[in-house]
Amino acid sequence: MAVLRAAENPIITPANIKPSRPDFEVIGAFNPAAVAYKDDVVLLVRVAERPFSADRDIEMTAIYDPQKDDIVIKEFSRLDPSIDFSDPRMTITPEGKFLTSLSHFRLATSCDGVNFTIGEKPVFRPANFYESFGVEDPRITKIGDTYYITYVAVSPVGVNTCLASTQDFEVFKRHGVIFCPDNKDVTLFPEKINGRYYAVSRPVTPLFEKYEMWIAESPDLLCWGNHKHLLSPSESDFDNARIGAGAPPIKIEQGWLEIYHGVDSSNRYCLGAILLDRDDPSNVIARTKEPVLSPQRDYETQGFFGNVVFSCGLVVKNESLVVYYGVADTSTACAEIPLCDILEKLS
Amino acid sequence: MAVLRAAENPIITPANIKPSRPDFEVIGAFNPAAVAYKDDVVLLVRVAERPFSADRDIEMTAIYDPQKDDIVIKEFSRLDPSIDFSDPRMTITPEGKFLTSLSHFRLATSCDGVNFTIGEKPVFRPANFYESFGVEDPRITKIGDTYYITYVAVSPVGVNTCLASTQDFEVFKRHGVIFCPDNKDVTLFPEKINGRYYAVSRPVTPLFEKYEMWIAESPDLLCWGNHKHLLSPSESDFDNARIGAGAPPIKIEQGWLEIYHGVDSSNRYCLGAILLDRDDPSNVIARTKEPVLSPQRDYETQGFFGNVVFSCGLVVKNESLVVYYGVADTSTACAEIPLCDILEKLS
Repeated sequence: MAVLRAAENPIITPANIKPSRPDFEVIGAFNPAAVAYKDDVVLLVRVAERPFSADRDIEMTAIYDPQKDDIVIKEFSRLDPSIDFSDPRMTITPEGKFLTSLSHFRLATSCDGVNFTIGEKPVFRPANFYESFGVEDPRITKIGDTYYITYVAVSPVGVNTCLASTQDFEVFKRHGVIFCPDNKDVTLFPEKINGRYYAVSRPVTPLFEKYEMWIAESPDLLCWGNHKHLLSPSESDFDNARIGAGAPPIKIEQGWLEIYHGVDSSNRYCLGAILLDRDDPSNVIARTKEPVLSPQRDYETQGFFGNVVFSCGLVVKNESLVVYYGVADTSTACAEIPLCDILEKLS
Repeated sequence: MAVLRAAENPIITPANIKPSRPDFEVIGAFNPAAVAYKDDVVLLVRVAERPFSADRDIEMTAIYDPQKDDIVIKEFSRLDPSIDFSDPRMTITPEGKFLTSLSHFRLATSCDGVNFTIGEKPVFRPANFYESFGVEDPRITKIGDTYYITYVAVSPVGVNTCLASTQDFEVFKRHGVIFCPDNKDVTLFPEKINGRYYAVSRPVTPLFEKYEMWIAESPDLLCWGNHKHLLSPSESDFDNARIGAGAPPIKIEQGWLEIYHGVDSSNRYCLGAILLDRDDPSNVIARTKEPVLSPQRDYETQGFFGNVVFSCGLVVKNESLVVYYGVADTSTACAEIPLCDILEKLS
């Protein structure tokens, strides 16, 4: 697989992002949505922040409070034996679980697809109860003249997927929760197929302990049904534990190409590809046995949560995919992969 | 609360049901859907069966195999130390989890609402991959001339809710998975509200370990969106661990009355009531602090899974609710509760 990583990688890091408040620090700038917009490439970058704590024994976390319509700060003592700090992503307290960071989206634009100008302020931030623990992992699909954004909304009642839309990346309209908890890694197909919209989703069955890919259809992008199971983890490969959609599917001659993420039993995240039937995308035609992209470089293997490459967006350029991807839950990287190389690996 | 249990309780037991095959035994006849149909009360009773095992050391379970379009039998040795038999509802093997019984629906009709004639054969049985571990806990809502049935479909990929419909309780049409895993305890409102259909659902967030009630809307009963969180378990009462819808909501002067189930930390299942706004059912107006019905009689406290009263259907008779309910995951009982008594307890 001729994966050409950008020489500038990681192309966006936390150091490139101005915190949204002077008392916050940015700890992640990753998992961006990506889309061609006018002559530019536009990213919606997930920016994870936390209150800056001068005291090492105090962990502080930020939460959006819908009653106050403002961010509130919670403090946890690292000396409190009743609190579990072992997962860097989550603090487990007798009062409940809290995320260690609060995410919003920042706009980044580039004319070359590699060097990005990043907005000084959040362009999309938590604004209701379902988003009180943050908005995460956006995916953009252009349908007609509208850019639809599926994104993960986290709150004490669960991990939902919501829909928003924009025409200009300045004004965003919210369309509510489209997939109820826990369901993330939702991405929309860019056109109707036989008169219906389609989306890949990743519901969870705690009873059977499975995290697998499903597909659903809709008359209006708001309401979803006819859910069908799409893909299971493989038996023994890079994606043998959990899987979920990555970038929005793209239409190619052979069908719908979906770059997805696969997690193995050691919590290593890779990207794979599947090919879906053009007329019935619930039908999986082919799947890569090897990863299309795996964590190899230092910036992919080391960071807030290492050994992770995770894509929410790509742009087609000539006969290649320009894949934007989060690395180690920390930064954003970019790689160009020839379409023919991916097709060759699909079987 | 003046709860008048039927003197004939339990009104349907496994002994009343003819097994669907000579080599099967019926271990449950419970959690029925209920609806007034012509001059009768019609129940769709969940019938749980398992292959009869002559050897105590062999546990046998039945699974619907969609490839063979037939039921296949799996055998597990109780002497195998790698298999966990501790939960009576589920066998946990290195190969995966299996339910200990396979459920289908049997039709039961009655002119007095208490003495039922039960069909000799299943009227609705597992028929596709999503139903391979059985169909469970049906709920009937009459909308127009059609009886819509939401039911739980269990398979290795999760616990889904599916929709079926019938005009005559003889021919049933399937409409696919309407709520993806894990989501059960789904029930439909009997009419559109402001031009939209509504359903209560019970998604699960394994991340935050919550089993709570949500509400969704739909243009067509098939596709669902605008999911909103409806109700959490209470802090300290009968429903402090998990909650979910019970019977379909009924329209009363004060709003929508929903009889739901609440589970406490000792796994005791009771029925409670909530009152929802007539024009915006996502708005909870009132809730009972005490159970409307709790397991007290021997047939409610003892059985396959004791201390359970669980309703999927009721019929309104004069100024009372005739509640049909599963007892101890074993049999079906019936109780009449004056509406005024429930309203008095709503606060």
